Amino acid sequence: MPFASLDDIRAFCRDLPDGNRRFADLAAQRQQNLTKPPGSLGRLEELAVWLAQWQAREKPRLERVTIAVFAGNHGIAARGVSAYPQAVTAQMVANFAAGGAAINQISKAASAELRVVPISLERPTRDFTEATAMSIDEFLEALEIGYHTVPGDSDLLAVGEMGIANTTTAATLCAALIGGGAARWAGRGTGVDDDGLARKRAAIEAALNFHRDILGDPLAVAAALGGRELAAISGAVLAARRHHIPVLLDGFVATAAVLPLARLDLRALDHCRAGHVSAESGHHDLLRELKLDPLLDLNMRLGEASGAGVAILLARAALACHAGMATFAEAGVAGAGD
Amino acid sequence: MPFASLDDIRAFCRDLPDGNRRFADLAAQRQQNLTKPPGSLGRLEELAVWLAQWQAREKPRLERVTIAVFAGNHGIAARGVSAYPQAVTAQMVANFAAGGAAINQISKAASAELRVVPISLERPTRDFTEATAMSIDEFLEALEIGYHTVPGDSDLLAVGEMGIANTTTAATLCAALIGGGAARWAGRGTGVDDDGLARKRAAIEAALNFHRDILGDPLAVAAALGGRELAAISGAVLAARRHHIPVLLDGFVATAAVLPLARLDLRALDHCRAGHVSAESGHHDLLRELKLDPLLDLNMRLGEASGAGVAILLARAALACHAGMATFAEAGVAGAGD
Repeated sequence: MPFASLDDIRAFCRDLPDGNRRFADLAAQRQQNLTKPPGSLGRLEELAVWLAQWQAREKPRLERVTIAVFAGNHGIAARGVSAYPQAVTAQMVANFAAGGAAINQISKAASAELRVVPISLERPTRDFTEATAMSIDEFLEALEIGYHTVPGDSDLLAVGEMGIANTTTAATLCAALIGGGAARWAGRGTGVDDDGLARKRAAIEAALNFHRDILGDPLAVAAALGGRELAAISGAVLAARRHHIPVLLDGFVATAAVLPLARLDLRALDHCRAGHVSAESGHHDLLRELKLDPLLDLNMRLGEASGAGVAILLARAALACHAGMATFAEAGVAGAGD
Repeated sequence: MPFASLDDIRAFCRDLPDGNRRFADLAAQRQQNLTKPPGSLGRLEELAVWLAQWQAREKPRLERVTIAVFAGNHGIAARGVSAYPQAVTAQMVANFAAGGAAINQISKAASAELRVVPISLERPTRDFTEATAMSIDEFLEALEIGYHTVPGDSDLLAVGEMGIANTTTAATLCAALIGGGAARWAGRGTGVDDDGLARKRAAIEAALNFHRDILGDPLAVAAALGGRELAAISGAVLAARRHHIPVLLDGFVATAAVLPLARLDLRALDHCRAGHVSAESGHHDLLRELKLDPLLDLNMRLGEASGAGVAILLARAALACHAGMATFAEAGVAGAGD
């Protein structure tokens, strides 16, 4: 078991494995010599350098790309915070298995391997307005499932989720660990109406009040106010860090899932990039808080790692240019001021 | 010859071929039935519907995708407005032919056919601070080359350019046809220093003054203050409209190239989307003027259709979801409020 206690996670985040600065520098130098004005490929250049840093390769590769989607159910759904019934979580997991969901098509388009991991769907977390969502043991169990989902030889990992009511969970984590209350973080999720939004805000405020004594402890918050699929995402992100695998985060829920790690040490997300900023209202603010600059802004709000999955295509374009372009010397092209 | 005179272009833009609303509606209806909250794929849904409208197919296809890159030289380069010598235009065309440029790699990543068309590189346009850049005949000749570059059976066209000094040309077109003077539109292009930027601004102001009597005539401006590769882009975009081919525009120069058409009738760009907004300072403003909402914002400023080429990947992801996803009925998933 990688993390037998919350203290093991805290210890890992105090002594985080680093990326390889030397390969980042080599990649950046290569970019300077390619036949284009320096910097003119913008974030595609940054992506190539970031991948080089974490893969420790001057020319990074994307042979094995993994998309991990975790699913969980939430006691808070009973409070009427979602437009969809809880049964949809399991129905969508079946849809993933049958190949019919958006992320199945995006995985194929991105030549990525999709791993869908439902976690105890028959056992929703407890309603966190009146109990802890998970015990510490339940939290660690879900985190471990996420940890072991990541193949150690992946070249890139994208993480996402499915779970009816989990934007309420994500908003509650943000309110608990960043502040600003329910008004700042509650959005419409999959599309709740005004009454549903009011119930969502009320649930968040009730949760903050019920758990007010633990709000200073990020991991205790992650267990008491989180969800199994969110815990699994944090486990997958920790596994990626241990194996030096770069990570693309998906939307609001996937980003909120790693907020507790960032609260232990912001550098815990150095190996992560935000695949996109979603249309869910809190995501923009959350990314700014985490100093993550999203690669895409396509007004998506589906989850399932769909935004991160599309961002894999950008990483492929970035590496195609990085590895395949001629240098000025190779092509006989004059540089600036020549 | 598709357009024997400027009046032929004006006539075409008074009676523009339309997209097919029925197929747009069918595609939009299909999106409503796919296993996701309505609208949750954001701009990927819009892309699918837009492609359906112009291809007149409920499930659009991307079998033949064409990237057209036009190259030209500019008399204004003699005014010291670029960081690179004019010889680089031909050198980069050779680099395209050898497969060493960014757009070669991006074309491969996007499974697109790349057509590079240098236009009279040995015959730069005249310095438009003291002459007309092109005669009307020269303009029409370049436009026709662009027109005939587009295969009539393309499913999607991306247009871009290469031409040392052509951000000065683009900025001049914007200043002439939108207003705001050189200060609003002159940016650093491939990376000119402060002195170069000052020369660029002076050249634009001189051109506006020299040509002040024709600024009310968009096509006369396109000839007198434009460039051959820009004229070719407008020709390619007109050909696409005639053949109902949707178009992804690249950056500041490619967008400025179609500004004269939009000044005849803004609907002339209904079959176009902005592949990205570039880092070139005027592009954001120009897109807003044209009511084009860019798909990507990756801080790119290379030209060569590189931004539009990356946007092809988004179109592929959009259609993968559109065609491949299961409907609620097929998957047995409950909809909102069920």
